[in-house]
Amino acid sequence: MKHIQSAQNPQVKQWKKLSMKKERDRSGLYLAEGFHLVEEAIKSPGTIAELILSEGTDITPRFDYKDIPITLVTKDIFKSLSETETPQGIMAVCRQKSSQAALESAETFLLLDAVQDPGNLGTMIRTADAAGIDVVIAGTGCVDIYNPKVLRSAQGSHFHLPVVTGRLEEWIPKLIEKGIAVYGTALEGASNYTEATPAKRFALLVGNEGNGVSKDLLEKTTENLYVPIYGKSESLNVAVAAGVLLYYLRTHQAQ
Amino acid sequence: MKHIQSAQNPQVKQWKKLSMKKERDRSGLYLAEGFHLVEEAIKSPGTIAELILSEGTDITPRFDYKDIPITLVTKDIFKSLSETETPQGIMAVCRQKSSQAALESAETFLLLDAVQDPGNLGTMIRTADAAGIDVVIAGTGCVDIYNPKVLRSAQGSHFHLPVVTGRLEEWIPKLIEKGIAVYGTALEGASNYTEATPAKRFALLVGNEGNGVSKDLLEKTTENLYVPIYGKSESLNVAVAAGVLLYYLRTHQAQ
Repeated sequence: MKHIQSAQNPQVKQWKKLSMKKERDRSGLYLAEGFHLVEEAIKSPGTIAELILSEGTDITPRFDYKDIPITLVTKDIFKSLSETETPQGIMAVCRQKSSQAALESAETFLLLDAVQDPGNLGTMIRTADAAGIDVVIAGTGCVDIYNPKVLRSAQGSHFHLPVVTGRLEEWIPKLIEKGIAVYGTALEGASNYTEATPAKRFALLVGNEGNGVSKDLLEKTTENLYVPIYGKSESLNVAVAAGVLLYYLRTHQAQ
Repeated sequence: MKHIQSAQNPQVKQWKKLSMKKERDRSGLYLAEGFHLVEEAIKSPGTIAELILSEGTDITPRFDYKDIPITLVTKDIFKSLSETETPQGIMAVCRQKSSQAALESAETFLLLDAVQDPGNLGTMIRTADAAGIDVVIAGTGCVDIYNPKVLRSAQGSHFHLPVVTGRLEEWIPKLIEKGIAVYGTALEGASNYTEATPAKRFALLVGNEGNGVSKDLLEKTTENLYVPIYGKSESLNVAVAAGVLLYYLRTHQAQ
């Protein structure tokens, strides 16, 4: 086991750079922190490039890490890499993976347009996973899918289904051409979701917290839906709306 | 208009204390910050005790505040009262209100057991409002309903429906006695929510982020429901699950 005690070590500097999207994009790597995320990542073979442990962290009883390179670092170094206030002493350097085959054969999608809050984005990835959706595609203007807060809110769902970035203006017509119904979400020119009769193969498109889905994208969809507001609030939180709609589409989809 | 320029002013010290639950409980007051919350509070007569404005904040075009006492404070004083990084320069001292009559005549409820994340609690208040629920009751172990982050996530729904604290172990039997069906949420000994035939008058009970609803409470309900997990995630975020269930109950309730 490698043991790094100097914060000036080039390896430490390299890891630190992974806090920046630019470096994550360049390297194809990202950091996943905490026992739960590492455990989920381990279950997805080939995801973890290496483990970083803080001195004193006991991982033996938790899982089988025998094929994964481990580097031990001082508590101070670990803290400098950590994004949490009370670090658990374990993080994984993960590989960004996306299988083209999985994307090609997918039948259900969640499409995200300019979702900016990392908690919302992560919660929607988790919800898509729970609802059995095959693929999540984050479009232009979304917060980075490998942002630490996104990873934390998604609670490991990144390792369960393909989560990729893409140009929705190209994906939507491509999906429709393949016979997959694309349901946008809008307040105007849309149908009450409870009146929709969802196709077996579908994509749900939700949008920005303040502005919703961009008009250009809404014009390309198969149909647009809304969740009715029965009370006095102006709108639903986007992750809650996505949950209501995904579960409706999932439980009412044609067989 | 009163104008306070000293941070040592006793009024400023009194307002600062409202950042603590203890003082909010004692005084029956709380602070609601930002234009959106103040605008929603103004629509609910009798809610605002006074307005606090930072020097330079222009409120004239936004709303009619003529009957509400206003105090102008320096930017530094305002900042010391604010809970946000970029204060909008306006906050209201609000009265905690709960109308016994509204509670007695309510037909639909959201009951929250030990929900600890303020974002989740606030989002659920907003969702209950959107779904047309009459009353939200926060039980033992919940974060304070007047916590600034709860208020922010609820986006003004505190001013749209009664949000109160209460002992759920007493409320649940009381509701059932009145003929209101209480649906708990549980992973074991529960029915798939899509198989439920909701009563017209109902209460939904959701629980703590990690542990769910306490066993004692689940034993007192009419029926317990679960939201199926079709993928590999372990669970749904509690606010998302509440959204899925509230909208199901709302759109399937007996007439």
